[in-house]
Amino acid sequence: MRVHVVGTGLIGTSLGLALTANGDEVTLEDAIATHAALARDLGAGRLAATPDPAPELVVVATPPDVTADCVADALTRWPDAVVTDVASVKGAVVSRLRERGVALERYCGSHPMAGRERSGAVAGRPDIFDGRAWVLTPTAETAPEAVRCVARVARAAGAAVRELPPEEHDRAVAAVSHVPQLAATLVAARLEDLDEAAVALAGQGLRDVTRIAASDPNLWTQILAGNAAAVRDVLDGLRDDLDAVIDALGALDGAADAPGARGTLARTIAAGNAGQARIPGKHGAAPTTYTTVRVLLPDEPGQLGRLFAHVGDLGTNIEDFRLDHGLGQPFAVAEIDVVPGSAAALSEGLAERGWRLHG
Amino acid sequence: MRVHVVGTGLIGTSLGLALTANGDEVTLEDAIATHAALARDLGAGRLAATPDPAPELVVVATPPDVTADCVADALTRWPDAVVTDVASVKGAVVSRLRERGVALERYCGSHPMAGRERSGAVAGRPDIFDGRAWVLTPTAETAPEAVRCVARVARAAGAAVRELPPEEHDRAVAAVSHVPQLAATLVAARLEDLDEAAVALAGQGLRDVTRIAASDPNLWTQILAGNAAAVRDVLDGLRDDLDAVIDALGALDGAADAPGARGTLARTIAAGNAGQARIPGKHGAAPTTYTTVRVLLPDEPGQLGRLFAHVGDLGTNIEDFRLDHGLGQPFAVAEIDVVPGSAAALSEGLAERGWRLHG
Repeated sequence: MRVHVVGTGLIGTSLGLALTANGDEVTLEDAIATHAALARDLGAGRLAATPDPAPELVVVATPPDVTADCVADALTRWPDAVVTDVASVKGAVVSRLRERGVALERYCGSHPMAGRERSGAVAGRPDIFDGRAWVLTPTAETAPEAVRCVARVARAAGAAVRELPPEEHDRAVAAVSHVPQLAATLVAARLEDLDEAAVALAGQGLRDVTRIAASDPNLWTQILAGNAAAVRDVLDGLRDDLDAVIDALGALDGAADAPGARGTLARTIAAGNAGQARIPGKHGAAPTTYTTVRVLLPDEPGQLGRLFAHVGDLGTNIEDFRLDHGLGQPFAVAEIDVVPGSAAALSEGLAERGWRLHG
Repeated sequence: MRVHVVGTGLIGTSLGLALTANGDEVTLEDAIATHAALARDLGAGRLAATPDPAPELVVVATPPDVTADCVADALTRWPDAVVTDVASVKGAVVSRLRERGVALERYCGSHPMAGRERSGAVAGRPDIFDGRAWVLTPTAETAPEAVRCVARVARAAGAAVRELPPEEHDRAVAAVSHVPQLAATLVAARLEDLDEAAVALAGQGLRDVTRIAASDPNLWTQILAGNAAAVRDVLDGLRDDLDAVIDALGALDGAADAPGARGTLARTIAAGNAGQARIPGKHGAAPTTYTTVRVLLPDEPGQLGRLFAHVGDLGTNIEDFRLDHGLGQPFAVAEIDVVPGSAAALSEGLAERGWRLHG
């Protein structure tokens, strides 16, 4: 396939690398000529502002603020090509195209849910799409062939294709990505002025909740601004729940049996239980409850290798794994998730091999 | 040392097991005789409502709602013993004791930051305190010998001793534990009524933010109610930030360059960056920035063992480790955190041994 990439940042370059490796013919352009040249030097494709023969697919991978205009340009410049873009918010692109009166038959927006903590062509890697969702967001006008064309390229890059209307996509990422990002940020911001002795009590729970708070303010400002309405809808619901919790705590402060207040807290936490239980597990499969075997791990080189060698000997498949670090002590706790039926045999086998199991 | 444990649930039983293993003389009592008998059968100590000779330390490990009254009773019953309790909120216990006119010289409250997802004597394990913070919360009246006595027992159980006034402890856990718990809950609650197709887009970020949302509503209602004022203070600050974000998103919805709105979003995310950077790393040490090496891991038994054996061969010490699961594909990505100076050699060595590094 002949694919033309407009914008050779992280996503454009990575896609060029993946498709070139797949045997597709990739051409590259970027508003900044040296960026395109760098992507070419890295092996993402050849330079060509007006590829001949014309591309079958044009992928617009520019910054979100100029995406819609670049899509409109691409539809004009290549009157037979399918055009997609990779912006992480989709409704705004479609709205802008409609405002400009652009016909949408050959346009199928998309969102590869892949990224890195670094940006630019030099951070590009051919495998960033492997095992990630790539959401296609056709409009009612989008031709089925256009959808199939973008799906083929997304799969060729290693991604798992999903399909949602643009507005549903934006509502979905508001709830599963943008609001969690903001919640992590708001919790972490509470630590900024906290006493050192208080911060020192932080445990694994806080570390997990705030891990994604270490995100780029510029990128996230663009993402949140681009999905403002959908994010605000989800945040409005969150604020209602938060206000109810704050009111309940106010009633309980000094009056331990304020009528209804404990019920509000318990119902809120139960709703969180129910929501959390819906999150898909490994490989996007239905949520599964695993049993966790905890093993005390001396903080010496090679201990994890020894542990996993023993787990391998025992023939147990590991579903998930975490390291939890002790405070002021030279060991960690290895948390091994396995299917419930395997837990007893694994615990016994590890104990026999001299591992100390942790309560 | 002679230690008497009042209340043989998870914490009381675990402490009995740890101290018995340490050679201390542990006696047990519980309002429900069969609970105490079970803890004894598990090896946590011997039964004795009125131990003779009298205990040197009494540990009250009852449910939070009756903790203060049990502490007052213990101070009366054993006029020479030091008394501590293990409730996770401290100010309320002290207030109640002062209301009752109890002298506080021999009382030093404490909070072992240890737990399990299960409760009761049968879930007790001698090692749940290993490497966990155990915060002592003496009042101004508490005698130094009483603090030293509780510290000795906490260390004997394997914990790292910290010291904070009761009110500071409660403010600290509000920020580093109770509010993160609520934030995880509120984010997870948004998923309860979300379309299946939207939930299916969940990634590792959402899983991390909401992991602790799978918590017991009864236990957490007691904890939050017991620390209502401090939790509300932190939540008030969080709500102010949230309102500013909601207002900024409202201004941006339909007017992409609303003056000041993008600045509000960027400043909020930057404050989260700053707070997140303060969280202590492994073993409570100062935060360290590690470099992450990502390795593609086929989903077959024994792969993790093979990987760690190779990491061991290369002599690299692993600082942290996570498994990130691909969507709809039979592999995961192993994320290995190492000190920055080790990353290049590890990447090269693993590539030489046939591992596929992930971008």
